[in-house]
Amino acid sequence: MLESWKDGPTKSAIVDFVGRAVTDVPADERVAVFDNDGTLWCEKPAYVQLDFLIRLLAEQAAADPSLAENQPYKAAAAGDLTWFGDAVTKHYQGDDSQLKALAAGILSANTAITTEEHAARVRAFFAEAEHPTLGRPYTACGYAPMVELLRYLEANGFTNYIVSGGGRDFMRPVTAALYGIPPERVIGSSVGLIYADGDLRTTTQPEFLNDGPIKPVRIWGRTGRRPILAAGNSNGDIEMLEYARHGAHPSLQLLVRHDDAVREFDYTAGAEKALELATTTGWTVTSIRDDWATVFA
Amino acid sequence: MLESWKDGPTKSAIVDFVGRAVTDVPADERVAVFDNDGTLWCEKPAYVQLDFLIRLLAEQAAADPSLAENQPYKAAAAGDLTWFGDAVTKHYQGDDSQLKALAAGILSANTAITTEEHAARVRAFFAEAEHPTLGRPYTACGYAPMVELLRYLEANGFTNYIVSGGGRDFMRPVTAALYGIPPERVIGSSVGLIYADGDLRTTTQPEFLNDGPIKPVRIWGRTGRRPILAAGNSNGDIEMLEYARHGAHPSLQLLVRHDDAVREFDYTAGAEKALELATTTGWTVTSIRDDWATVFA
Repeated sequence: MLESWKDGPTKSAIVDFVGRAVTDVPADERVAVFDNDGTLWCEKPAYVQLDFLIRLLAEQAAADPSLAENQPYKAAAAGDLTWFGDAVTKHYQGDDSQLKALAAGILSANTAITTEEHAARVRAFFAEAEHPTLGRPYTACGYAPMVELLRYLEANGFTNYIVSGGGRDFMRPVTAALYGIPPERVIGSSVGLIYADGDLRTTTQPEFLNDGPIKPVRIWGRTGRRPILAAGNSNGDIEMLEYARHGAHPSLQLLVRHDDAVREFDYTAGAEKALELATTTGWTVTSIRDDWATVFA
Repeated sequence: MLESWKDGPTKSAIVDFVGRAVTDVPADERVAVFDNDGTLWCEKPAYVQLDFLIRLLAEQAAADPSLAENQPYKAAAAGDLTWFGDAVTKHYQGDDSQLKALAAGILSANTAITTEEHAARVRAFFAEAEHPTLGRPYTACGYAPMVELLRYLEANGFTNYIVSGGGRDFMRPVTAALYGIPPERVIGSSVGLIYADGDLRTTTQPEFLNDGPIKPVRIWGRTGRRPILAAGNSNGDIEMLEYARHGAHPSLQLLVRHDDAVREFDYTAGAEKALELATTTGWTVTSIRDDWATVFA
């Protein structure tokens, strides 16, 4: 197991921790939480969900040219991915102006459809969409070492959850195939749903933005457990990792460092605080360049 | 299995449905949801959680006599359980005035403590509290036939969830012992939590009142599945039962009818609409008097 991990201090820290957990922590408390974008799969040049949403926004702009004057429709119609990537990077740097315009567009893009219809849209997207530079379907953009880690943890009695800022119902249709994680163990951002006549339909109201200090709140809400392993890669994961660290049991905090421009991407934007805390707080940093023998299966 | 169920049309309907589900429904979609109060355990003369909260409110009134002039502290200090029961009955009949006073008291009773401290309070309550008339601890007030049904469903590949109007974090410390249902499969009402310094603490802000049309929303939010079996006993369960009925798979809706004044309680208040819908919509009604050979183990 963990074949895609190079031998070294990171792999040893994982194996040592899992051994300690098996000895010291009851099986039902061996809960592990994983951020998704940039932790379990590639998040560059833009979030996969943005590609899904940009396609919807471009379709809407094509159907209603008056929309195309304004953001985010203008950028979607022009294929201007940079505008979307900037919205997220600026959010992590404290400027939410672009993200708000984006969120408004996102919230109206999938409104008043049933949860089943939404899942069908997501499945249709993943059936054909490919990563723009890696030359593979998005469904093959999961990190092989992290998928191996999920299986290794399961083999040692852990239960794995995804805890992502990404859309809960965008991830659910594909997490079983990508990661072996079923929909009931996917925690993410969500829009409000409304029940009527036997069905649930999407609204334009945001429900949770599952990021930063909201991640621990949602982990408890969903599981009633404090995790003993938390893995992330950005400033939005800091509180989740610290929540795992402050429990009574041994714990492990994993931070993925994107430092491999050849096989993946090399960036620290949006992760500055997390990388700093990793050194001062004793988290385990996973270097893609140095610790992973293989990045993608 | 199902030894506490008398032979008859209700037991047959359950066994027939489970057989059909095993044949027709993939195992990971065999999701069953159960209301708690009045469905899995006794809810009369008042919700168990009210006893827990009344004790806290009485302690607060004793510590601060100025509180004791107003509701709900006045009723708590006087041991006036009727006032609390009325608050809930009136809610189901459309009058929320008492429930609002009660909710304000409840929300302030457990504020600014960690989730772990709250769980310890709940465990301390259940370690000593007894049902006021049945002569048994609350932890022995689960309905034997329903607990057998949970085991029967599990043996047939189902996954069971509790979906209750009761407090999520009030139920979680005891559902494993009572029902074999772990904390991550308990869906209930909740107060907002706030993360700081590695811990989660309770606030005075309500988060979800998990009742009526909110139940299907929360089932989807937590599981990403539409259940195929839903069991309840009150008007607050109508939408959850209908949600299960409107799926593509065979489904079963169980409504517990409280008609046994000798062994449990005999009442229809708060269940009037549900009992009416059961006959017009084809739900399966479970009569405590007629269908259960044993009520409590």
